[in-house]
Amino acid sequence: MRIVVALGGNALGKTPEQQLSLVKNTAKPIVDLIEQGNEVIIAHGNGPQVGMINLALEIASQTKAKTPEMPFPECGAMSQGYIGYHLQNAIREELLSRGNNKPVATIVTQVIVDKDDPAFENPTKPIGSFYTEEEAKKLSEEKGYIVKEDAGRGWRRVVPSPMPVDVAEKETIKTLVENGHIVITVGGGGIPVVAEGNSLIGVPAVIDKDFASGKIAEILDADYLIILTAVERVAINFGKPNQKELNKMTLAEAEKYIKEGHFAPGSMLPKVNAAMKFAASKDGRKSLITALESAREGIEGKTGTLVVK
Amino acid sequence: MRIVVALGGNALGKTPEQQLSLVKNTAKPIVDLIEQGNEVIIAHGNGPQVGMINLALEIASQTKAKTPEMPFPECGAMSQGYIGYHLQNAIREELLSRGNNKPVATIVTQVIVDKDDPAFENPTKPIGSFYTEEEAKKLSEEKGYIVKEDAGRGWRRVVPSPMPVDVAEKETIKTLVENGHIVITVGGGGIPVVAEGNSLIGVPAVIDKDFASGKIAEILDADYLIILTAVERVAINFGKPNQKELNKMTLAEAEKYIKEGHFAPGSMLPKVNAAMKFAASKDGRKSLITALESAREGIEGKTGTLVVK
Repeated sequence: MRIVVALGGNALGKTPEQQLSLVKNTAKPIVDLIEQGNEVIIAHGNGPQVGMINLALEIASQTKAKTPEMPFPECGAMSQGYIGYHLQNAIREELLSRGNNKPVATIVTQVIVDKDDPAFENPTKPIGSFYTEEEAKKLSEEKGYIVKEDAGRGWRRVVPSPMPVDVAEKETIKTLVENGHIVITVGGGGIPVVAEGNSLIGVPAVIDKDFASGKIAEILDADYLIILTAVERVAINFGKPNQKELNKMTLAEAEKYIKEGHFAPGSMLPKVNAAMKFAASKDGRKSLITALESAREGIEGKTGTLVVK
Repeated sequence: MRIVVALGGNALGKTPEQQLSLVKNTAKPIVDLIEQGNEVIIAHGNGPQVGMINLALEIASQTKAKTPEMPFPECGAMSQGYIGYHLQNAIREELLSRGNNKPVATIVTQVIVDKDDPAFENPTKPIGSFYTEEEAKKLSEEKGYIVKEDAGRGWRRVVPSPMPVDVAEKETIKTLVENGHIVITVGGGGIPVVAEGNSLIGVPAVIDKDFASGKIAEILDADYLIILTAVERVAINFGKPNQKELNKMTLAEAEKYIKEGHFAPGSMLPKVNAAMKFAASKDGRKSLITALESAREGIEGKTGTLVVK
């Protein structure tokens, strides 16, 4: 089977030392899936990592060193290099330790969004530093940033979270997958770009990594989209006495649970939505939401929450 | 013909805005070579870019934001994402504007060096900030950095410049080249790693990008290595009344000129050495040293300095 696995950026740690250590755990269940004979494509988040890169470059640009200010898409490109380097090595090492010398590589990946996506009218995703109201309004005037007050913690820049439309490097990814390579792609949901004529123009935005993973899964005609999260199964009545873990949801059931408000926005809801979108995209396609260490058992039908048409 | 083109990092500018603009010029002669029917692989330097990333992250880590310190190989990985993103887009756009939809992609690339390379005994390549003697000695004690006084301008950390031995992602690069993709690889000479058992371990070092380009050219059995520089031809008696530009050098001639001291260390000498190494590696392999805008005419034999066995 062809499987796209979406890893959370939070599972990669906040420092290079943490990341180097955590990717070793991440590699094991991924290589389990490869050992089962599956074609595995790896997507990952980058929230803490691109936040750190963006913040550090912003801070340094204001010191006497005057390093250049770095636009957000370029920070995303850097985070793909940084995360991909550690992740590809950990997977390579785990494969080799099991006698498997499949090549692993990271593709710097741009995800195309629609410049008329309604998300551009309503930016919601906070990035970078916290500011005072005064600083925030100055940034808004000087740089055209959209700023919002963030839950009493200060003001932050917000960027839109548009839907992925296409993956610029899809032919490269396809060629590698078809030739048996393990590919790391759409890091952080991809570098967000809009198409203008023959150009791709970077835009300050954050594409949800689960939707981006679903998009590359559709393009690659994958059988499974596995969305890895902190819990083994999706639950309804989460945290209540009548909490119930789900083995399986049809699209209709998922719709009903969403209407009943079972899934938290910004947490399980977007994962369920991304899972539904892939499962709905073609007969036979399935999404699985589970914990990292349960990926193999999930594919074997023993755990996780399956989302099917 | 199969051609590896090595671009200088200095030609990419010091800011993201400069880079975005400069890559458009860089793309034209590269696409000229592709239009001639050649298979083109692009390697590039990253001196100013990785320097900027390293410096900014170092500065930010010392502020109250306490962003993590970033090891040098990770900074290199970031620079590959940052430069690759702009370069692949510029090449894609130039190709599309000429009606060519060949895929272009950047591979995060690690170059393996020998942990017993004599360069590790004598680090020479300055990176990062300038320090006072006191600061430098403190860094040396606390972090084990090797520090050296840099031509009266202050103290700097120095890292070794070992020779490339292998390219970790070579199978991926081969597969893409054989399938007609344009590949950007070994950015900044590659992320320097040493092999220990099944692991690849990042080391603080700078691999010369021309030698790394020659190594991937050898691995891919390329016909040509083109080393792009600021001048159209290599000259002997450079800057003197009897300066003579060279159309061609055999290895024996090049050896003689080197012994006579015609090529400046840290400037033309390493380029000539890398060109010689590739030309010597197999019968029929040729290296060309020329200016960016002269690449096509150089391949047609009209300009540049050809280095042959």
